[in-house]
Amino acid sequence: MVRKMIIEGLPVVPEANAALEGELSSALDTGDEFFREVSTHLLRAGGKRLRPALVLLCAQAGPSGPAGGAVAMQLAVACEILHTATLVHDDILDGAVVRRGQPTVSALWGERVAILCGDYLFSRALTMVAELGHSDVSVRLGQVMQRVCEAEIRQIVRAFDPNSSEAEYFDIVRRKSALLIAECCRSGALLAGADEAIGEALFLYGERMGIAFQIADDILDIEACTDEVGKPTGKDVALGVLTLPVIRALTGSDELRTLICRRLSREGDARRAIEIVRASDGIEYARRVAGEYVLGAVRALDGLPPGEPRESLAAAAHFAVHRSR
Amino acid sequence: MVRKMIIEGLPVVPEANAALEGELSSALDTGDEFFREVSTHLLRAGGKRLRPALVLLCAQAGPSGPAGGAVAMQLAVACEILHTATLVHDDILDGAVVRRGQPTVSALWGERVAILCGDYLFSRALTMVAELGHSDVSVRLGQVMQRVCEAEIRQIVRAFDPNSSEAEYFDIVRRKSALLIAECCRSGALLAGADEAIGEALFLYGERMGIAFQIADDILDIEACTDEVGKPTGKDVALGVLTLPVIRALTGSDELRTLICRRLSREGDARRAIEIVRASDGIEYARRVAGEYVLGAVRALDGLPPGEPRESLAAAAHFAVHRSR
Repeated sequence: MVRKMIIEGLPVVPEANAALEGELSSALDTGDEFFREVSTHLLRAGGKRLRPALVLLCAQAGPSGPAGGAVAMQLAVACEILHTATLVHDDILDGAVVRRGQPTVSALWGERVAILCGDYLFSRALTMVAELGHSDVSVRLGQVMQRVCEAEIRQIVRAFDPNSSEAEYFDIVRRKSALLIAECCRSGALLAGADEAIGEALFLYGERMGIAFQIADDILDIEACTDEVGKPTGKDVALGVLTLPVIRALTGSDELRTLICRRLSREGDARRAIEIVRASDGIEYARRVAGEYVLGAVRALDGLPPGEPRESLAAAAHFAVHRSR
Repeated sequence: MVRKMIIEGLPVVPEANAALEGELSSALDTGDEFFREVSTHLLRAGGKRLRPALVLLCAQAGPSGPAGGAVAMQLAVACEILHTATLVHDDILDGAVVRRGQPTVSALWGERVAILCGDYLFSRALTMVAELGHSDVSVRLGQVMQRVCEAEIRQIVRAFDPNSSEAEYFDIVRRKSALLIAECCRSGALLAGADEAIGEALFLYGERMGIAFQIADDILDIEACTDEVGKPTGKDVALGVLTLPVIRALTGSDELRTLICRRLSREGDARRAIEIVRASDGIEYARRVAGEYVLGAVRALDGLPPGEPRESLAAAAHFAVHRSR
């Protein structure tokens, strides 16, 4: 009954993920003393473990059942490590000092170590995927990581551009966040022997829920207090990353446009920008759009037989937007 | 006759690598405008192309002949991209502004872009390896990249430690430089259908030549003028990376020990340290050791039939230490 526990565990019961945590821990303990220390720190900081939970759930859509458990678990662990690698590098890009309520790797050990730790986690994850012996999965995950890098670069290039469009926002979010989640779902199912149509349906599910998940994250960045999300709020705005609530608010506020055009360079600009977005219908609008993506994700599950894992996946999609961190 | 041309091209005729350069260029042109610009810059800066040359040469040790040409070329290109990824990140770690006579990615576009470009190249390379459909090669190259990261971290942790031993130096050099070269050789041969014994011999060849190559690099860092190597000399010493000539010089110079203990923190310390190493027998000693590794590399070729590629590989091993950049 790992399945139920993990999805139920997403918002509230992290200790239910004991099996996953154990596997994560041993996957990262490759004998190097220094990396063991960093890994222990990263694992202690926890996380929602959304991607491995989705891999394990989607693996139940295939016929291999318990026999495929070890394969699904290895993919699940690899996907979480891959995601962690991107977070470690993201925190350098963002100059972040706190993540999941803990100091970041770059804050604790410096940027040079953080670059190398990201590379190390990245290599470790892709090695684990390769060990599964399905080159197609390795190819697809490698391609996803290319799309992630492209999106991150795009985000840097387009920072503080008040003409950023919703279309661009969705393109970046899709590549930056949704594709990895989509690929976790598809590969989890295919490695468990599910047919291509199920794989495609789950890819679509993951893509849509991934977009919803990222929109929810972007809302939290504007709306929540620092304590709730485990990292400083308003971070995206400060970096000039224009998220959906901001793009929406921009359509009705010349003042916000002016602030962003001058790259929030004056004292109080960032605070004022957040105030404007909060007072606009940006958050409400973004929440509505996220809700539509959740419905789209649930609709993508139509091709699956009723029961498990369909029910848990639908619940996970709703969780993606109804969470406080 | 690609084979001969490439190895002869290593020291003197870069234009002979036209086929390889064309493949590199198209491999990096994945449609993203920004990465195309960065890739063009990286390719224009050139390089020795040692790793792809070794892949192509070692592929001739297998029976698949011209039929395996496309596979060998794809692996060759992937290995060069993998190596380039490590250089892009290395240049951030080292704060380097010049590489191969050109501004580094971090100097031109900033650290954030350089981190992402390294990640992108890394993903691209491992995707290309995965496309070959041999998971064992993907696993081994992924593991090599883990060893590279471990060695780089070790180098940071052990910086300015005057008690660094030769054994530690060789352990770091093996992981940081030699394993990738060794794996290029082995995988090139195995993908061309060579038997395991040939693969092992070529791995050993590559490992030894890789160590010789790195020692030669370390000698150049101390000995050459900036113009010759395309990057500032004395860089390793300044960063506290104690290479073989320095470790050797330390055994006979209390002054050098004092300088390193205080982390070359005073005006003129770095220049003086280089002077001491140059005046010691450190360079001569390192050159002798490198020569022994070259002989060991050539000896590892004993298991191969006479003729090609054995002759060219032996020539490449000698080139590894007799070069001016």
